[in-house]
Amino acid sequence: MASLQFQLQATDGHSAARAGKITTDHGEILTPIFMPVGTAGSVKAVSQQQLKNDVQAQIILGNTYHLYLRPGLETLEKAGGLHKFNGWNRPILTDSGGYQVFSLASSRKITEEGVVFQSHIDGSKHLFTPENVMDIQRSIGGDIIMAFDECPPYPSEYKYAEKSMHLTHRWLDRCFERFNGTPDRYGYTQNLFPIVQGSTYADLRKASCEYAASKNAAGNAIGGLSVGEPDHMMYEFTQLCCENLPAEKPRYLMGVGTPWNILECIALGVDMFDCVMPTRNGRNAMLFTSKGVINIDNKKWEHDYSPLDDGIDSDISNYYSKAYLRHLMKAKEILGLTIASVHNLAFYLWLVGEARKHILAGDFISWKNEQAAILQQRL
Amino acid sequence: MASLQFQLQATDGHSAARAGKITTDHGEILTPIFMPVGTAGSVKAVSQQQLKNDVQAQIILGNTYHLYLRPGLETLEKAGGLHKFNGWNRPILTDSGGYQVFSLASSRKITEEGVVFQSHIDGSKHLFTPENVMDIQRSIGGDIIMAFDECPPYPSEYKYAEKSMHLTHRWLDRCFERFNGTPDRYGYTQNLFPIVQGSTYADLRKASCEYAASKNAAGNAIGGLSVGEPDHMMYEFTQLCCENLPAEKPRYLMGVGTPWNILECIALGVDMFDCVMPTRNGRNAMLFTSKGVINIDNKKWEHDYSPLDDGIDSDISNYYSKAYLRHLMKAKEILGLTIASVHNLAFYLWLVGEARKHILAGDFISWKNEQAAILQQRL
Ligand SMILES: [Zn+2]
Ligand SMILES: [Zn+2]
Repeated sequence: MASLQFQLQATDGHSAARAGKITTDHGEILTPIFMPVGTAGSVKAVSQQQLKNDVQAQIILGNTYHLYLRPGLETLEKAGGLHKFNGWNRPILTDSGGYQVFSLASSRKITEEGVVFQSHIDGSKHLFTPENVMDIQRSIGGDIIMAFDECPPYPSEYKYAEKSMHLTHRWLDRCFERFNGTPDRYGYTQNLFPIVQGSTYADLRKASCEYAASKNAAGNAIGGLSVGEPDHMMYEFTQLCCENLPAEKPRYLMGVGTPWNILECIALGVDMFDCVMPTRNGRNAMLFTSKGVINIDNKKWEHDYSPLDDGIDSDISNYYSKAYLRHLMKAKEILGLTIASVHNLAFYLWLVGEARKHILAGDFISWKNEQAAILQQRL
Repeated sequence: MASLQFQLQATDGHSAARAGKITTDHGEILTPIFMPVGTAGSVKAVSQQQLKNDVQAQIILGNTYHLYLRPGLETLEKAGGLHKFNGWNRPILTDSGGYQVFSLASSRKITEEGVVFQSHIDGSKHLFTPENVMDIQRSIGGDIIMAFDECPPYPSEYKYAEKSMHLTHRWLDRCFERFNGTPDRYGYTQNLFPIVQGSTYADLRKASCEYAASKNAAGNAIGGLSVGEPDHMMYEFTQLCCENLPAEKPRYLMGVGTPWNILECIALGVDMFDCVMPTRNGRNAMLFTSKGVINIDNKKWEHDYSPLDDGIDSDISNYYSKAYLRHLMKAKEILGLTIASVHNLAFYLWLVGEARKHILAGDFISWKNEQAAILQQRL
């Protein structure tokens, strides 16, 4: 089995947008790509069959924090890893758990060693270190695993951002040392991506990109954005990071974002995205469609029997009407959560697939500008 | 378009079990059949695609009480009926709403005219009468619609049961008068089934069967059982009703039951079943399988990576493991509710399909006795 390969297939003449192909031991991923978030081994409310057939997902995420706490490593190891456990036989990426430790755990304390935190489920105490987070992700079995980092909030003082970045860098060294000293667990190759931090400070971001790039990893991730800063700032630092990360490796912008955020960041040179927005917003009645944004709770859809979205290639989106989905959401029927989640994910996958087509066709920027205007409309 | 036809294809030589074929304007139903309950236009947590492909449902139910309150008749009528609204293009049966008025409404008062009740959703007051319940079911658009009846609780005093039965009979006359005086709404034929009542009194049940049969309807239903009486009593009165209802019409036993209840009642001559048990119990972690009953919350399944049920023909049941489903239920992941519901329904449809095969093969009773023992085992 082989390390992750990235083939850069086309670069847009009018922007930094790229089309490429990632090859892993669990198959290929065409970029730019959106990765649905499969929190605890399940993309919320969506079956693996729906992910393949309706969403046409090529890779999904798993959250280390959630999987470590439940079902726990013993269950995952005995299954032969997450792919075997949940039946998803295409690529999986696991995050490092750092983000959830800060956003979900009921308490946490950072030291040089790592982070001590209490489970949000039962209050039990746990320690995450760069070393054991590598071991945990080895056990979960992602094709791509992420470095353990500290993600400073927005806004952060320069001093704090700098100190935090250097901690992330020292942790990065420890991650690679542990990762390189441990074998793949399940007979296929796992790949460690470093994460760039540095908050909203250009010199820090640049230094962090160089530090990450020096690891010569199979790919590089941009963290610490989409944490509350205005969009123009997110774009500014995404651009800066893309310009300072190697072109021959895939670039993964973590936790971004709306459909128009994704289009803009593709234009800046990002290849991989993940976000809970399509599923979380879907469960809260917000639909992204090829014609604009829909609040399906709105009374205006009560008698609209047209398909959720006939502009994309998804059975679920073509089959169910706006009036039916509105009814299901009002009646708090579980099927409503599923339909909204499947549709939004199918839309995100459609969007990145279209972006790829237009990058390859050479008219990405004009298409992107037109789409960004359409997609933000409130219907 | 044509009224519902029932073709009796085989009668078992050693029991009253029958195999048949029901033909409606939305297609054929092979009997004995189990009908998943689609409460408010959705079988809870199950998509219409899963109902067709995984469950292989031939007909589903809609609840008049729920659909009348939400989404309401205007939305259903403008859609062109429930089939168009929810995209289910196979047969649909609607109940009369009587049962839910008694079990769900926040208050109700019975008079000769009908039942005044308060919505459990917003407390609004409504009146159901035999006449308007026919009109409502015409609007919803079921292929089979049910008479408006009163279902006495178990146990009931003889005097109350007798009085209630006669009220149900007077309402039955009014139902047929209204039904026969109103046209089909959406270009296909709707069929009204009377409901036999009479509680646990043989003379009342017999009289009610004769009253129902006198309507010469396309099919007949047995109500008021599976309301708390012991199983042997349910079987006793099911047998009595089957013996007193015409053989050339399908017999529908309402609200029954466990897999072994269904096998016994098939042996007594029942052709159609519905029950919320597969979906409700599924959502509560109880699985019916071809090897016995599973409480998937039990720790014994934590590391059992075998399929939920490899004894039936359902992708979902064959694909996901016990350990994975247990994890999803523990983590309160919505996908767990979906998998459990789809599996249980697929199992129920498998069970009635197998029963049919064995009726046609002539070895139903020996197969039924063997299965009833296996299916009740706690694994
Ligand atoms: Zn540093
Ligand atoms: Zn009478």
